[in-house]
Amino acid sequence: MKEMLHILKIGGNVLSNDLVLASVLSAFSKKEGRKIIVHGGGKKATVLAEKLGIPSIFVEGRRITDTDSLEIAVMTYAGWYNKIIVAHCHSIGLSALGLSGADANAILSVKRPVKEVDFGWVGDPVMVNIQTLSHFMNIDLTLVFCAVTHDGQGQLLNTNADTIASTLATALSNIYSVNLTYCLELPGVLEDVSNPNTVIPSLNRSAFIEGREKGYFHAGMIPKLENAFNAIENGVKKVVICGPDSFLTNGGTHIC
Amino acid sequence: MKEMLHILKIGGNVLSNDLVLASVLSAFSKKEGRKIIVHGGGKKATVLAEKLGIPSIFVEGRRITDTDSLEIAVMTYAGWYNKIIVAHCHSIGLSALGLSGADANAILSVKRPVKEVDFGWVGDPVMVNIQTLSHFMNIDLTLVFCAVTHDGQGQLLNTNADTIASTLATALSNIYSVNLTYCLELPGVLEDVSNPNTVIPSLNRSAFIEGREKGYFHAGMIPKLENAFNAIENGVKKVVICGPDSFLTNGGTHIC
Repeated sequence: MKEMLHILKIGGNVLSNDLVLASVLSAFSKKEGRKIIVHGGGKKATVLAEKLGIPSIFVEGRRITDTDSLEIAVMTYAGWYNKIIVAHCHSIGLSALGLSGADANAILSVKRPVKEVDFGWVGDPVMVNIQTLSHFMNIDLTLVFCAVTHDGQGQLLNTNADTIASTLATALSNIYSVNLTYCLELPGVLEDVSNPNTVIPSLNRSAFIEGREKGYFHAGMIPKLENAFNAIENGVKKVVICGPDSFLTNGGTHIC
Repeated sequence: MKEMLHILKIGGNVLSNDLVLASVLSAFSKKEGRKIIVHGGGKKATVLAEKLGIPSIFVEGRRITDTDSLEIAVMTYAGWYNKIIVAHCHSIGLSALGLSGADANAILSVKRPVKEVDFGWVGDPVMVNIQTLSHFMNIDLTLVFCAVTHDGQGQLLNTNADTIASTLATALSNIYSVNLTYCLELPGVLEDVSNPNTVIPSLNRSAFIEGREKGYFHAGMIPKLENAFNAIENGVKKVVICGPDSFLTNGGTHIC
């Protein structure tokens, strides 16, 4: 039987609230099995860029990463957020190791080819170093991944944290029984985005396609759901989209 | 016989020059044995603080680290510099793992007690996690340490990079034969600080004390030399202070 691996993606609104972050990490620390946390930090990066007079440009919800924006992303994600999460984990008894995709060549990416949009220093993952990651987990380390990867040629790349979570979940499902949880501000995928009491308890691909065509899901949820369906269709045992409260009660939307 | 471990501390002026950094890392990658790189990044942190309107305050060459300064230090050291060095290492065939002291509880510190000066969020190392670090090195990872540690209670701490280098060197000399190199802008310890041709080829503690009393060494060199003597007197096999050029030719000042 495969060993259990819990992968938790923490969204920006959870990250930016110390108390909420602490309660989510506390609940996560009690899960039995191997553990990986994935985080972004885009909101803080945007604020820092603003203070430094560097414009943040988004196309379809994705950041255009020029050289200045890459530096800000690496500082914010791999620097500040990664290390405060790692330090916090130790304070609650989880021995944590912070990683970017460059560390130990954990996630190798290719720079996104320029088509209609030039996303700049953005990378799409092509390889997960399963051997080294399982080596780390075998010595009881909780891995904390930020949204930065590299191309193996010395170039850092900004990589969507949801994509990192589903990429890790899929790759590691070869040797682990993987539970993937996206913990965001909302309590789950909502039927009516203005009403938090309309959480859809379970969602399959055909209902998603139907809902998307009817314009049910807001722009930010669609790539998240794409990542979630990719994961469940590629070996991941369980995928849940939930909020901080529903994470504690095992609620949210179960992807099936 | 103990396995060889090379520890290289890279100074700010080496870090801030891409070409010089690349040549030093290239020479370092060719060393036989286990490898650790330690870096700071104070100059860039000072520039970033200035852009953000946060004052950088130094007492006896040491940064006073308030909450804003800590965030800048963590972003610059653990974020930007750590990850560009790690990514560069992979491009020259070194599989590198970036670490703060918080990662895998690699270096535990205590917040410096407030005496005449309140240094703020500054930590002095009290424990090195030798077992986990040797575990990482046994799977052929080159460790890249930034100048950030933690207190085990969730608090990150700014820690002098020279101190991190000598602390690691001393702790790891229990199981490795350690060569510690401080690579700075100057070609070594100079008899006349205005003349780079006056490198002192070797320096022992009594000559250092004599020279210090005569005011031979400039303020920044004294804590570096203290760290170097502490290392050589506590089991480290070889300690050298050199510049990028003298690093390539095995020159510089040998501490004995």
